[in-house]
Amino acid sequence: MKAKVYVSLKPGILDPQGKAIQHAVELLGFDGIADVRQGKYFEIALADSGTPEEARESVSRMAREVLSNPIIEDYRVEIEA
Amino acid sequence: MKAKVYVSLKPGILDPQGKAIQHAVELLGFDGIADVRQGKYFEIALADSGTPEEARESVSRMAREVLSNPIIEDYRVEIEA
Repeated sequence: MKAKVYVSLKPGILDPQGKAIQHAVELLGFDGIADVRQGKYFEIALADSGTPEEARESVSRMAREVLSNPIIEDYRVEIEA
Repeated sequence: MKAKVYVSLKPGILDPQGKAIQHAVELLGFDGIADVRQGKYFEIALADSGTPEEARESVSRMAREVLSNPIIEDYRVEIEA
């Protein structure tokens, strides 16, 4: 089973890295970009034991406790069979 | 319009950052993790001009030329209305 975790900054949290990327792509000639925000993406391969629900529960706990900073970041978990 | 770009290492490319995360979560007591790979995630807000097809074309070019290193990374683009 495979899990994907997406971690992004909460709305309202400043993202200087995203702003730098936006500035860079504009200098390179891309226009029509209103905003860029950078996040993190994790692909987690799970040993096949347990149900998708158990996997979601375990990966959500990992996302909350380890992969994200819940003060400033949101996370999203997807489970693929 | 909003675009999401996911950049991940191609299969076969070593991911020491992912290995470090895997080791850390195992030390913290999470088991059943076969592999962890880390990627990048970009949320791009587009000024509303043009069709979703044009947006996909423009964002794909940006992903290919700026946001990823096509030698070692794959990217995936999603467009949301």
